[in-house]
Amino acid sequence: MSQPDALTDLRDRLRLFAADRDWDQFHTPKNLAAAMTVEAAELLEHFQWLTAEESASLDESVRADVAEEMADVLLYLVRLADKLNVNLHDAALGKLAQNAAKYPVDKARGHARKYDQL
Amino acid sequence: MSQPDALTDLRDRLRLFAADRDWDQFHTPKNLAAAMTVEAAELLEHFQWLTAEESASLDESVRADVAEEMADVLLYLVRLADKLNVNLHDAALGKLAQNAAKYPVDKARGHARKYDQL
Amino acid sequence: MSQPDALTDLRDRLRLFAADRDWDQFHTPKNLAAAMTVEAAELLEHFQWLTAEESASLDESVRADVAEEMADVLLYLVRLADKLNVNLHDAALGKLAQNAAKYPVDKARGHARKYDQL
Amino acid sequence: MSQPDALTDLRDRLRLFAADRDWDQFHTPKNLAAAMTVEAAELLEHFQWLTAEESASLDESVRADVAEEMADVLLYLVRLADKLNVNLHDAALGKLAQNAAKYPVDKARGHARKYDQL
Repeated sequence: MSQPDALTDLRDRLRLFAADRDWDQFHTPKNLAAAMTVEAAELLEHFQWLTAEESASLDESVRADVAEEMADVLLYLVRLADKLNVNLHDAALGKLAQNAAKYPVDKARGHARKYDQL
Repeated sequence: MSQPDALTDLRDRLRLFAADRDWDQFHTPKNLAAAMTVEAAELLEHFQWLTAEESASLDESVRADVAEEMADVLLYLVRLADKLNVNLHDAALGKLAQNAAKYPVDKARGHARKYDQL
Repeated sequence: MSQPDALTDLRDRLRLFAADRDWDQFHTPKNLAAAMTVEAAELLEHFQWLTAEESASLDESVRADVAEEMADVLLYLVRLADKLNVNLHDAALGKLAQNAAKYPVDKARGHARKYDQL
Repeated sequence: MSQPDALTDLRDRLRLFAADRDWDQFHTPKNLAAAMTVEAAELLEHFQWLTAEESASLDESVRADVAEEMADVLLYLVRLADKLNVNLHDAALGKLAQNAAKYPVDKARGHARKYDQL
């Protein structure tokens, strides 16, 4: 039997986790969006005073803390997607296709300007 | 042949996308953390004036916009995980196990207090 | 002699604080913008699971914590304004005038739609 | 007659602005905290791909956009402080005193470590 996809697996585990604790009442899309933003910012906090170089060679203990914040962002994102009936993989593939059209290789190469300034 | 996992698939596509455009230079963990936080906040913007109830019954056009912001968060998250050699599924499973221990069903049921106030 | 304005007073105190600690090197606009966003999100964390009603009647201890996060946001904002030579009061008055034009009383009254949907 | 303090002036203008539009119903502390975080992130967006050096020498048009985002953060912060009866100047002075104690000059000089790692 095939294993479920990682995103599906997490979705199902989160459903159970919330049901066991009667937490669906708190998991409105609005609250989940706020919680996800908070976790993203907690992740950013680890980097706020680092140089670009330092941010690319984290101490192992910082890297582990950052990995936990990444997990928090993913868990809230998966939960939000479940509540809004969004297929995250499909949404991401759609966005990648959009970005490929907005940032053609020959125009976007080597700089970080926004698509409307290419 | 088995399909790659959604997260692995996105990781590989993003590697190629960045390489084609010579964008690795911009994708420091610090910058990716900032970009991910910005996308999370853009998602939150859709909900900021909505009531909890309104946030649970979005117009289809708003839901589609929100799905795009979710895709943006996921794409930056996957890219950051790649840069920091973090396996997102494993990190999320680890966090779920931690949360299960911090929020035992009998103590956490039905309220949203933090684990240190259970 | 007249007292300095609150914003000017804080600007001057922060200059001294940073100079004493040789922290100007860390206070790039980019880093200050990240730090301010992190503090705003830490403030938001206090509200993420609250209902609208609960958020309007905080326990005194939560209110005090929130006040500290507000102070953090203000301090980074004042510091960033100093680094970018922005007069915050003038900028805020300018924005208020813009908003008054974008949201005329008769069209904006009683709902939270964006100006382009009035 | 003495001029009102900038923060008091903005507070009063925002009260009138909201009253004219019957917007107090939307200005719960929770919503204001979310809106302020969104504006902070929009400010951060201007910096996300810039190097530290680039962030310190913005084009004038970018600086003007950033000043508008700063105004937005300040306006929501002042509005939130009003709703929670927080005196922002006092809160900021209190936080500065706390920070001075947590980061003594001799220990904090020249590095950006957190107070618990000095």
